Amino acid sequence: MSHRLADPVIHHWPERESDDDQLRLECGVCGVWGAPGNEASSIVALGLHALQHRGQEACGIASVADTHFHTERHVGLVGEAFGSTDLTGRLPGSASVGHTRYSTSGGSFLRNIQPMFADLDTGGIAVAHNGNLTNFLFLRNQLVAEGAIFQSTSDSEVILHLIARSRKARVVDRFIDALARIEGGYALVAQTPKKMIGARDPLGIRPLVLGRLGDAWVLASETCALDTMGATFVRDVEHGEVVVIDEDGLRSLKPFPARAARPCLFEYVYFARPDSVVNGRSVYEVRKRMGHGLAREHAIDADVVVPVPDSGVPAALGYSQASGIPYEMGIIRSHYLGRTFIQPSQGARQKGVRMKHSPNRSVLEGKRVVLIDDSIVRGTTSVKLVRAVRAAGATEVHLRSASPPILYPDFYGIDMPEREQLLAANKTPEEMRALLEVDSLGFLSVDGLYAAMEAGPRDPANPQFTDHYFTGDYPTRLLDREIAEGGRDASPRQLSLLVSA
Amino acid sequence: MSHRLADPVIHHWPERESDDDQLRLECGVCGVWGAPGNEASSIVALGLHALQHRGQEACGIASVADTHFHTERHVGLVGEAFGSTDLTGRLPGSASVGHTRYSTSGGSFLRNIQPMFADLDTGGIAVAHNGNLTNFLFLRNQLVAEGAIFQSTSDSEVILHLIARSRKARVVDRFIDALARIEGGYALVAQTPKKMIGARDPLGIRPLVLGRLGDAWVLASETCALDTMGATFVRDVEHGEVVVIDEDGLRSLKPFPARAARPCLFEYVYFARPDSVVNGRSVYEVRKRMGHGLAREHAIDADVVVPVPDSGVPAALGYSQASGIPYEMGIIRSHYLGRTFIQPSQGARQKGVRMKHSPNRSVLEGKRVVLIDDSIVRGTTSVKLVRAVRAAGATEVHLRSASPPILYPDFYGIDMPEREQLLAANKTPEEMRALLEVDSLGFLSVDGLYAAMEAGPRDPANPQFTDHYFTGDYPTRLLDREIAEGGRDASPRQLSLLVSA
Amino acid sequence: MSHRLADPVIHHWPERESDDDQLRLECGVCGVWGAPGNEASSIVALGLHALQHRGQEACGIASVADTHFHTERHVGLVGEAFGSTDLTGRLPGSASVGHTRYSTSGGSFLRNIQPMFADLDTGGIAVAHNGNLTNFLFLRNQLVAEGAIFQSTSDSEVILHLIARSRKARVVDRFIDALARIEGGYALVAQTPKKMIGARDPLGIRPLVLGRLGDAWVLASETCALDTMGATFVRDVEHGEVVVIDEDGLRSLKPFPARAARPCLFEYVYFARPDSVVNGRSVYEVRKRMGHGLAREHAIDADVVVPVPDSGVPAALGYSQASGIPYEMGIIRSHYLGRTFIQPSQGARQKGVRMKHSPNRSVLEGKRVVLIDDSIVRGTTSVKLVRAVRAAGATEVHLRSASPPILYPDFYGIDMPEREQLLAANKTPEEMRALLEVDSLGFLSVDGLYAAMEAGPRDPANPQFTDHYFTGDYPTRLLDREIAEGGRDASPRQLSLLVSA
Amino acid sequence: MSHRLADPVIHHWPERESDDDQLRLECGVCGVWGAPGNEASSIVALGLHALQHRGQEACGIASVADTHFHTERHVGLVGEAFGSTDLTGRLPGSASVGHTRYSTSGGSFLRNIQPMFADLDTGGIAVAHNGNLTNFLFLRNQLVAEGAIFQSTSDSEVILHLIARSRKARVVDRFIDALARIEGGYALVAQTPKKMIGARDPLGIRPLVLGRLGDAWVLASETCALDTMGATFVRDVEHGEVVVIDEDGLRSLKPFPARAARPCLFEYVYFARPDSVVNGRSVYEVRKRMGHGLAREHAIDADVVVPVPDSGVPAALGYSQASGIPYEMGIIRSHYLGRTFIQPSQGARQKGVRMKHSPNRSVLEGKRVVLIDDSIVRGTTSVKLVRAVRAAGATEVHLRSASPPILYPDFYGIDMPEREQLLAANKTPEEMRALLEVDSLGFLSVDGLYAAMEAGPRDPANPQFTDHYFTGDYPTRLLDREIAEGGRDASPRQLSLLVSA
Repeated sequence: MSHRLADPVIHHWPERESDDDQLRLECGVCGVWGAPGNEASSIVALGLHALQHRGQEACGIASVADTHFHTERHVGLVGEAFGSTDLTGRLPGSASVGHTRYSTSGGSFLRNIQPMFADLDTGGIAVAHNGNLTNFLFLRNQLVAEGAIFQSTSDSEVILHLIARSRKARVVDRFIDALARIEGGYALVAQTPKKMIGARDPLGIRPLVLGRLGDAWVLASETCALDTMGATFVRDVEHGEVVVIDEDGLRSLKPFPARAARPCLFEYVYFARPDSVVNGRSVYEVRKRMGHGLAREHAIDADVVVPVPDSGVPAALGYSQASGIPYEMGIIRSHYLGRTFIQPSQGARQKGVRMKHSPNRSVLEGKRVVLIDDSIVRGTTSVKLVRAVRAAGATEVHLRSASPPILYPDFYGIDMPEREQLLAANKTPEEMRALLEVDSLGFLSVDGLYAAMEAGPRDPANPQFTDHYFTGDYPTRLLDREIAEGGRDASPRQLSLLVSA
Repeated sequence: MSHRLADPVIHHWPERESDDDQLRLECGVCGVWGAPGNEASSIVALGLHALQHRGQEACGIASVADTHFHTERHVGLVGEAFGSTDLTGRLPGSASVGHTRYSTSGGSFLRNIQPMFADLDTGGIAVAHNGNLTNFLFLRNQLVAEGAIFQSTSDSEVILHLIARSRKARVVDRFIDALARIEGGYALVAQTPKKMIGARDPLGIRPLVLGRLGDAWVLASETCALDTMGATFVRDVEHGEVVVIDEDGLRSLKPFPARAARPCLFEYVYFARPDSVVNGRSVYEVRKRMGHGLAREHAIDADVVVPVPDSGVPAALGYSQASGIPYEMGIIRSHYLGRTFIQPSQGARQKGVRMKHSPNRSVLEGKRVVLIDDSIVRGTTSVKLVRAVRAAGATEVHLRSASPPILYPDFYGIDMPEREQLLAANKTPEEMRALLEVDSLGFLSVDGLYAAMEAGPRDPANPQFTDHYFTGDYPTRLLDREIAEGGRDASPRQLSLLVSA
Repeated sequence: MSHRLADPVIHHWPERESDDDQLRLECGVCGVWGAPGNEASSIVALGLHALQHRGQEACGIASVADTHFHTERHVGLVGEAFGSTDLTGRLPGSASVGHTRYSTSGGSFLRNIQPMFADLDTGGIAVAHNGNLTNFLFLRNQLVAEGAIFQSTSDSEVILHLIARSRKARVVDRFIDALARIEGGYALVAQTPKKMIGARDPLGIRPLVLGRLGDAWVLASETCALDTMGATFVRDVEHGEVVVIDEDGLRSLKPFPARAARPCLFEYVYFARPDSVVNGRSVYEVRKRMGHGLAREHAIDADVVVPVPDSGVPAALGYSQASGIPYEMGIIRSHYLGRTFIQPSQGARQKGVRMKHSPNRSVLEGKRVVLIDDSIVRGTTSVKLVRAVRAAGATEVHLRSASPPILYPDFYGIDMPEREQLLAANKTPEEMRALLEVDSLGFLSVDGLYAAMEAGPRDPANPQFTDHYFTGDYPTRLLDREIAEGGRDASPRQLSLLVSA
Repeated sequence: MSHRLADPVIHHWPERESDDDQLRLECGVCGVWGAPGNEASSIVALGLHALQHRGQEACGIASVADTHFHTERHVGLVGEAFGSTDLTGRLPGSASVGHTRYSTSGGSFLRNIQPMFADLDTGGIAVAHNGNLTNFLFLRNQLVAEGAIFQSTSDSEVILHLIARSRKARVVDRFIDALARIEGGYALVAQTPKKMIGARDPLGIRPLVLGRLGDAWVLASETCALDTMGATFVRDVEHGEVVVIDEDGLRSLKPFPARAARPCLFEYVYFARPDSVVNGRSVYEVRKRMGHGLAREHAIDADVVVPVPDSGVPAALGYSQASGIPYEMGIIRSHYLGRTFIQPSQGARQKGVRMKHSPNRSVLEGKRVVLIDDSIVRGTTSVKLVRAVRAAGATEVHLRSASPPILYPDFYGIDMPEREQLLAANKTPEEMRALLEVDSLGFLSVDGLYAAMEAGPRDPANPQFTDHYFTGDYPTRLLDREIAEGGRDASPRQLSLLVSA
């Protein structure tokens, strides 16, 4: 979990490369209950593989056989960790929960890899979590003052401690007790010896879907995981809903007062896989409509529409279809992990050589190019791409962002740079255009984005979506932040947390 | 190197999965001469990364500093092996040669990873090779009978032994002596303490290009490697040409009688990266023209054109442009190595779930789909995709192959199944259509492919390209095969080659 | 930690080989406070290396720099984990604590490797522990019922939770609060940002010594660690003593009522290194006197005295000196980890071939042999050795155990087989002699052992030493055992503890 | 193999630590022919484990099943590489040959690990070799000039090339052809698909013994390997003998003119395991007699005799028995690999702290100590031990070396320092005594050593043993050395050998 405002953990490990101009979502979750033949963990592994785009640095699976829990947590991709051997012996049982995450740098933070486990006096519980708590530090400090010992810096562990300390007798009641104390955006999947529990935050900021696979029940962050597992989509878990699955079937609880949903727009803009359907909307179609909107809002006379692959592809297709300008693969993406190359310093080498994107000269030479990206964060990647496109012979480069300018940080599970590093938060439109070295620059408007969502215009009083990165209108209070900024008198103490291998 | 006719090496390791329905090219090569600051190997690493699509299973780099050679050979991707640490200390020197290869399964065949090295009495020599010798076994048996000891089953080692045993005084003359004895398709890059040598087979079957990076010279399999290294394209190495680079500059030798070039068509169809220019032709544009040809030859009334990503994308764009049918990303490809997943056997699971390609229901539902693939080998992948597309709601599926039917095996470096497993070699068109469960099936014609190459119709007397996989017309004799089939009386002995860890 | 009576953790990993006939002590601890130049962890590594005989399967070091803790925990030997690279960067700080342990099988129990850490609201604390708590399960269940979450099955974590939950304001008072609740045998070393704390159980069952290294203070399980670190021995930490070291120097606290010390005899018999001085007695000299006693109690007419190396060497020298029978190395020990060899089943192979001990025929052939071992546990090793000695030509074999018969299990940190597997607990002397296939068998008497300790005869009312394995007279109550046997009505619940990789 | 005079291979890896004051023998070999149930390799693994003292850095095993060879070569101990899993599947077959070696630093020289393999036109052959060729460079250069390609710097590969190039028809004749050209000390074990061949150099410098295990035949460097394998000793392979084992049984060939044997004395002094019988003599008994001789030649009035463990133990026992001075373990050896510890620089630390040997104060304090070592090489270890013994309270230290002064380098497989670093070759006795900081210093005389061998006085005309390290009298010519020193006009060229990972 990232806590950008105050993250006091000492890092041994190499800092993330400063040029890293990409947003990251921090997790995908998946759970299966009622699978025959000890195959729950194998099915979860398929689901996690389909959710790999939500976090590529670490993954874990816990399974329950009888009352015993088994778990494995690994740094690396799901396919490497769980793909190549039979899991029925390694992780037996008919119920299983899994997690894939970004943001575990190096081996040092194995302890932060989920699912997390606790041995309650009512039996064990394993929890996987996607999202971020906005009162994490507040709760953690309170728990430490009460004598709780933390092994990680993970939100999930705060939730486990809240469950463990609840005075309620039954585990579902304890779980709801814990939910009552946490704030932020989250999707949770928990397994106890007898039950699978799923929960989504009161606003439905983070997604969670329910499916069936034969007689088994499935929970997952996105529908693409259901497809890969071979499961059938049943419905979205609703905002503020707790689903409890056990041998009596599924019970839906709504323990908290009803509020309007407000799902996160960035799932549509960037995070979710294009073949997923999130809250009833096809991600691919939303992105294409973002391209249509861009073509309407920022038309230009040009020869080719070129996506920044892969995330810019649907919007570029939409732009091309709406504008009639031909779509071409003017940039080729290498899918062989190339980000970490140490580059030779050799003088003769052209600046800005990139390992991941290569310009396709035959498409670009002598052309006026409309370059479509899903969003612009720091702009450091964009300017390199623009230069590469020009070096390949483009006569004009017009950059279009399929989302509005990113102006404010996120606190609900998106790993964003500090506000000082967000390009749009610090530059005028003309400054940005000059800095990005493009002939024209256009961002989709917030209303354009709402239109792409087929949601009518934004309602400022009760916005239909979580959109603070564009508007500054946060959907919840931000307790940790208020405390850090002195708006609250509780002073968050520095964690002296252990850094271990 | 594969020697499909007789490969007697015992395999400890798991067999390649039988469902693996993909062609593989066996190598990419890259060399740098004259780089300042011990950076030759770092530049070669960038080049190999750009050539990763030519072989993902192993890679190696050798460098020369003074008269000393250094080398590292690894199983795995270039980025993993060479990406993340400074190579100037690990592999110092101003000259370096590298290789990336497919077909090294497991750790067992580390000895087969190139570049290969020999310590001649004239000094060391390191050789990297792409292609395949058609008289490999003949030469190898002859050399063993003369007392040569082999450490690998690689063509490169045969070439090294021929060089070592040449009676010529100078290393370039020895190298040419060796070339005079080998047959087949090849691109070679060699480093000696003083020189870099590049060579291409007499017909130019395998590609090799020459570039400059400041004062340094560069050789690589494809232009995309030049782009990534930051080098400028100078020209293709010509068929039958030997280029010798040393402190006196570049010398071009043509030691053998002039013949017409006959480059391999599969480089355009599948192997080369779309942003490469091979023998003067943009691969991307050729592929788009293949799509145009397909639209002409096999028009159909349909709602969407959907590529099998990534290799089918340019032809699908071409088909869409020529036909006016909209292009959509109806299949999403996961780039997280998923091939090796052990799948749960669970009854409820839908047949044919695939880890690599996911159908995008929002594009396919209720649509008549034209599905474009670059080629059809066994057809096992195609039928799974067709089923997935139908399961996602397509009402019709029309499959189009951007290359002609594959009827004959290759012996020049493409890893193809046995003829018995080539779909088109064993089925009638209608049988294929039924087996692939499509509403219609179309292959580009050989003349259509020649047209896409902008090469006029095929000249049967002197075909302009290597195209035996479609026509059965092999560009060279096949000595090993003739011997194996008894057309020659020398009996190829079984290698008792060591299988080692 | 071992809890032989009830260890409900599921084991994935291979069971310890059933033939494993050796006692194991579970830990060595070491701490340094006040080292200059970030070298505390390097000094601790030296100390742990000298304590390697107390646990070879895993080791860990934590260091404190300013208020930040760093830690590394590894499966394997100290030299492998910490030997070969500079630790000043990896584990910086002037204070450090380390631990080496037996009983971490496989990678699965990394979480059990010490030192353990907690982030209290007064700051961090790292604890290393040697020994075993006899009320571990009682406390753990109580803590879980209060909402504590455990990550391990280690005693240290119980102690950390007790510290974390103490209502006292200062960390030393919290530490003493925790000591007041634990029962058993233990030596503890803890580091906080400002202090090093050492403690020994009220009877001094487990050893702990205090030393100085320049201005720095050192704590370690044995004096041999002081020697290797280059430190000077100051004194034993006393039974029931808590030493607190900080910038004001050393304070000695005795928070609990005074009792007579009762150190563990097995430290002298087997565990401590012969060059250590434990509680003022040279281990080597005690062992030699055990040999003297044996020669007095069980004299025999023989040709050579042969030790079972290495632990039987000092007693055999003592036996030889007292009896005048020459001492010879009749059994050669291989020090290259050979225990795990999978042996060929080949019929021709002689039974009982052993990888660790080889008979030295030139010493044994035609001789009457007195074979001296430190102790006899199951007897499975002994009988193989006896056969090997006879196969090498010995005409008579007289086995002598330098310690009394082992009759009762231990609960203070020695990993002993169940009582059913202890040879002497289940056989008459003559049965043992016959089963061990020896001509005569002799054990040192309990009084003989007390004499070797130069302690006068055993005082049955207030025994001078912990000796329950010989006498059944346990030095403390055994709460967990009493509960398990129903003597108490609290039923210890099964842990559903996670088994993780 | 070490070639001290000219070893031009570039080393990436860390140099051996300069303080390393120990001789090393470079290999142990072992072979089994005719084992049932694919167990040959498992039996070889046991034998190699028993020969681990002859080389701890790398090991390899090759097996033959039908005509196919399988091999594994590893850096590390035999138990780690081959101990813990069933080898019958990994290395199947009824015949197998293995090798353990010192001198493979790092992973870089995997290619040098034996057994080495060649695929001859008569079938495969695997060769393992202990010893060193004195005409290695001469032969290697000759072979390279003829076009041979080398993959290693190993003597074994020279032998393989000689076999491969022999014009003889049968493999045994080719093997003898190769023996006719090599010079030096060696023991060889080779496996072909049908035969096992063993050979010892004409003087029997390096040992090799023959045994039986049921119907199978066994060859090994020492009898201790036979014991561990469960095999029966048959006889030594004789000097200059070639034994050929196949389904017709054992044939003994003596292809070269008869000469007197001259085995290496250092096998007795240091290398062989004490429980081995080498050339009919018990190593343990010879060493004890060396102690007797020392007591006679260098008597002293003292309180205790203390060995430098483990190699000094038998001589110390002999000294004690002959002198009547009590034998005590005054130095404790840690068997947990401690050599590589990076030591803290901390000022307070006592100089000369050692990780491997610890003084036992209870034995040394206030005593006059006779310290017995097997030999003195550089003296750097000795002086540290002497200081440690004094620091532990010894009042006098009298050092005795159980072998004569080492004055000359070895060229037959012992890894010795350059002559400039041999203490005795560069200092007077009094200088040595002062430098070693001892009260007296005594070396066994050459005649004393011959007496310990029960061989009568040395015959200067035809010495009974290889003893050049003491006498300068080399048993063979030293061709490579003569060439290097210009005594021959062929100039050995520098190898430009590849340094690879």
